[in-house]
Amino acid sequence: MTAEMFPKEKTIDLRKKHIGPSCKVFFSHDPIKIVRAKGQYMYDENGVRYLDCINNVAHVGHSHPMVVKAGAEQMELLNTNSRFLHDNLVQYAQRLQATLPEKLSVCYFVNSGSEANDLALRLAWEYTGHKDVITLDNAYHGHVSSLINISPYKFHQLANAEQSKSVHVALSPDLYRGNYRQDHPDPATAYADDVNNLIQKAHEKGHKVAAFIAESLQSCGGQVIPPAGYFQKVAQHVHQAGGLFIADEVQVGFGRVGTHFWAFQLQEDFVPDIVTMGKPIGNGHPMSCVVTTREVAEAFKNSGMEYFNTFGGNPVSCAIGLAVLDVIEKEDLQGNALRVGGYLMRLLEQQKEKHPLVGDIRGRGLFVGAELVRDRVKLTPATAEAQDIIYKLKEQHILLSADGPHRNVLKFKPPMCFSEEDADMVVEKIDQILTDIEKALGLQMPSTVHTENGSHKRNVQPEENGCHHSNGIGHSRDTSQHHASQQNKRLRP
Amino acid sequence: MTAEMFPKEKTIDLRKKHIGPSCKVFFSHDPIKIVRAKGQYMYDENGVRYLDCINNVAHVGHSHPMVVKAGAEQMELLNTNSRFLHDNLVQYAQRLQATLPEKLSVCYFVNSGSEANDLALRLAWEYTGHKDVITLDNAYHGHVSSLINISPYKFHQLANAEQSKSVHVALSPDLYRGNYRQDHPDPATAYADDVNNLIQKAHEKGHKVAAFIAESLQSCGGQVIPPAGYFQKVAQHVHQAGGLFIADEVQVGFGRVGTHFWAFQLQEDFVPDIVTMGKPIGNGHPMSCVVTTREVAEAFKNSGMEYFNTFGGNPVSCAIGLAVLDVIEKEDLQGNALRVGGYLMRLLEQQKEKHPLVGDIRGRGLFVGAELVRDRVKLTPATAEAQDIIYKLKEQHILLSADGPHRNVLKFKPPMCFSEEDADMVVEKIDQILTDIEKALGLQMPSTVHTENGSHKRNVQPEENGCHHSNGIGHSRDTSQHHASQQNKRLRP
Repeated sequence: MTAEMFPKEKTIDLRKKHIGPSCKVFFSHDPIKIVRAKGQYMYDENGVRYLDCINNVAHVGHSHPMVVKAGAEQMELLNTNSRFLHDNLVQYAQRLQATLPEKLSVCYFVNSGSEANDLALRLAWEYTGHKDVITLDNAYHGHVSSLINISPYKFHQLANAEQSKSVHVALSPDLYRGNYRQDHPDPATAYADDVNNLIQKAHEKGHKVAAFIAESLQSCGGQVIPPAGYFQKVAQHVHQAGGLFIADEVQVGFGRVGTHFWAFQLQEDFVPDIVTMGKPIGNGHPMSCVVTTREVAEAFKNSGMEYFNTFGGNPVSCAIGLAVLDVIEKEDLQGNALRVGGYLMRLLEQQKEKHPLVGDIRGRGLFVGAELVRDRVKLTPATAEAQDIIYKLKEQHILLSADGPHRNVLKFKPPMCFSEEDADMVVEKIDQILTDIEKALGLQMPSTVHTENGSHKRNVQPEENGCHHSNGIGHSRDTSQHHASQQNKRLRP
Repeated sequence: MTAEMFPKEKTIDLRKKHIGPSCKVFFSHDPIKIVRAKGQYMYDENGVRYLDCINNVAHVGHSHPMVVKAGAEQMELLNTNSRFLHDNLVQYAQRLQATLPEKLSVCYFVNSGSEANDLALRLAWEYTGHKDVITLDNAYHGHVSSLINISPYKFHQLANAEQSKSVHVALSPDLYRGNYRQDHPDPATAYADDVNNLIQKAHEKGHKVAAFIAESLQSCGGQVIPPAGYFQKVAQHVHQAGGLFIADEVQVGFGRVGTHFWAFQLQEDFVPDIVTMGKPIGNGHPMSCVVTTREVAEAFKNSGMEYFNTFGGNPVSCAIGLAVLDVIEKEDLQGNALRVGGYLMRLLEQQKEKHPLVGDIRGRGLFVGAELVRDRVKLTPATAEAQDIIYKLKEQHILLSADGPHRNVLKFKPPMCFSEEDADMVVEKIDQILTDIEKALGLQMPSTVHTENGSHKRNVQPEENGCHHSNGIGHSRDTSQHHASQQNKRLRP
C-alpha cells in the first residue's frame, strides 16, 4: 500500500469534486495531508512530524500495535452480526460493565456516538412515556437529526433555526463565563434550579420530561466542568419529574480525566441512568456503546420493538474494544493522563500568570482548556488571537484547536500517551506566540488581575476537548477566520 | 486468539445479563455460536459447517483475505478523521462515483445504513425546505428515531404506534399480494398515482413533501420488485411537488442484482436524487455512504451547518471499501450473482411447479425470495410452514430466513460467492422438507393453479432480502412462532 497516491493538489481537487462541501478540513487555507501516525505523532506526505494535541479518538496512541493486531486477527477469523452467539461480545460487555457502577449493567453496541445518543433518547422515551428533553446550552450530542434538535452548538448555526417545542435549553454550568460564577455561594444549586424551572415550565404547558442529557464535562460547548454536586441535584429534579439522566461520555470517557475512568464519576457517588460512549472506545474503529439499567432495558424490550444494529457488537469491533481496554490498563494510560495532564495544567497556569490573554486554565487529566480573553474583567473573548495561535502552531508542526461558543478556548485532548516533553514543547511554543501577539497588541499584565484572579484557587476546573469547529475550519456562521485575518494585518505592521 | 473463551451456556448467560434484551439472536430456542467463517460458510464452536444463505453483509465472502489485508495494513499505517487530507478518501469517492450516473457525484461517508438514511433525510429537508416524507408500506430504513418514523415495518411493532403527521405511507408496489397485481393493465401508473394522491392530500393540509424514500427493491417489507416504470413515474410526481427521490440501496446494492451494480438501475434510465449505501459496502466493517447531486450538496452546505462524522471516511474504512470494489471486479461477483442467482431461480421455479405451498418465486441476481402460501388463490400466508422450514434447514446446517409482513417469504441473500452446488444443496433440502410438510397437511398440487399461475411469465419479479425478524427470532408482536409450534404439533402426529 503506497502511502501517497496523488500529489496533494490532486487530492484537494478530488475532494472538492467528490466530497460533500459541508465536510470541512482542518486549516482550510492550507490543509494537511497525513499519511501515517504513531503514538502522539502524525506524519505528512513529506515525512514532516506533527505533535498531535487533539486526536482524542486515537486514545491509546495512533495505530497501537496491540489494537491493530487484535483487529486484524479477528477480521481473519470472523466478522458477523450479533444474531449469532460470540464470546467477544459478552466478554467485552462484561469488561465494560466492570468499569461502571453495578446498576449500569446492560449494553447496546452501536457504531458511533450519534447512534449511541439517539438510542439513549429512544430508551428514555420508551421507559418514561414522556417526550421532552432538557439539554445544556452550547451542547453537542451528534449529527443525526434527533441530536441536532438537542444540540444548540449545531442548531444555532442554522440561519433559520427552529427549536423543537419538546427541547428545553438549560444554562451551561460554566463558572467562568456563565450566569453563576466562582463568586456565587452555591452555583451547583443555582444551575440545577434552572433545570428545575424548565421542568416546571414544561409541566405548565402539559409537557413531560423524558430526559436530561449532558456531557459529563461539556466539551465543544465551552470546556465546562460542572460544579460539584450539580449532577446529583439535577438528577433529583429530573427523577422527580419521571425523567432519566443521560451522561454523554463520548468525548470524555475511558480514563481521560485521570482520577476516574468515567468523567461522571468526578461527581461523587453520582450514577446516571444511561451512559453513552464513543470516540476513544475503538481507537478509531467505528464503534460505540450505550449502557443502562436493567429496568430501562426491560421497558425498552416491552415496547415490542426489536433492536438490531447490523454492525454493532460484531466480533472485530469487540476484539478492538477489548484491546483498547487492555492497553489502557497495561500502559497505565489513566495514570499517565493524571500525571501529564497535571503537569500540563501547571505549565499553563504559569502562562496565565505571565500572559494577560490567558483568562482561565481548566481541565481534568488530559482534557485541558486555556480560555483566551482580551480583558480579564469583561471576559471579552480573544477569538482571533486563539485562531492565530492555532495557525502559528501548525506552522511549527503542532496540532491544536480552539472551540467553545466563542472559539476562544485552546483545547488539549491528545492521545493518552502524551508525555511531559510533549507538554513542554507545546507550551513553550504557545509562550512565544503569546509574547509576540501581546507585544503587537500592546497588552501588558495588569497587576490588579494578578491579585484578583491568580490567587483564587478554585475547587472546580472547567476542561477542554474538541469537536467540530476546531482547527481553522471555515464555517459560515463563524466570523473568527475573518477576525483572524484582520487581526493578522494588525499584528504584522 | 482463542476461537472460544466460554462454554456456550456461559455465553448465553452472559448475554442475558449484559446485552439489551431487545437484541435478539437467530433461533432463540437454540441459538448458534459461530467462531469462524470463510466464503459462504460459517463454523460453530464444534467445527460444524453451516451454508450461509443470508449474510448479505459478508458480500464478497466471509473474511475475504484481500479485504482483511487492506484493512490490517491501513490500520497499521493510519486511522484518523477526514479533517486531514487522505488519498484513500478521494480515491474511494472517485471509484464509487464511477459506478453511478454522472450527476450523482458528491459523497458523504458515514458509519451505517441508519446514519446514511438519516443524512439523506437531512439533505432533502434542507434542499427542499419541506418537511414531509413519503415511505412505502412495510418499509424498513433503519433504527435511529427519525427512521423508525418512516419505517412501517418497525413502527407497526409498537403497541401504541403513533404515526408522525409528516409521514405518509404509500402502497407497496407488490404485484403478487398488493392492491394492483399482475393482472392489472398498468400497475406502475396505479401505484405511482397512489403516491401522487398522498402528495395532494398533504398539500390539502398545507404540508409539503421533502422526499419519497424507497429501497430500490423492497426487502424486509416483502421482497417486492416494483413494476418497470414505477420509479420514473413516482419521481415525476415527487419532483413536481418540489421533493427529492431517495433510493435506499443499503441491502440491495453493489452488484447483488446481477445485471446492474445498483438495483435502481433495473428501472431503465432512472436516476434518483440521493442514493444511500450500507451493509455490503465494507464486507462487515462499519461503514456507509450517501451520494447526491452537486445541487443538493451545495444547498446543504448553504444551510450554514458543517457536517462532521468522527469515523466516516477514515482511511481504514476507505481502504476496506476499495478492496471490496476490487474483489467484486476481480472475481466477477456481479456476474456470479447473475449466473448463480438465475440458476437458483430456475431450481426454485421447479419447486413451485411441484409444491402447492410455493406461491411465488421472485428475485434478481442473488436476491431471491420464495413466498409460501396455503392457498394459491386466497394467498393465505404459510407463515408457520416458513418458520418450520427455517428451523429444519438449520438442523441440517443451512442458514436461511423468512421475512415480509407475513414472515412467509424464504429469503436468499447469500455472500456473492455462492455457487450452483450451494444452490443445489439448499433447494434439495427445501424440496424434502416441503414434501414432508405437504404430506402431513394433506396438500396436493391443484391442476388449475398450475395453468393459472405457472403459465404467466411476468416481466417484473419481486425479490428477497433480509432484515430483522428473519430467523426464528422471538418478537412479541409476531405470532408466527406460536403458529409454528401449533403447526409442529399437527405436523408430527
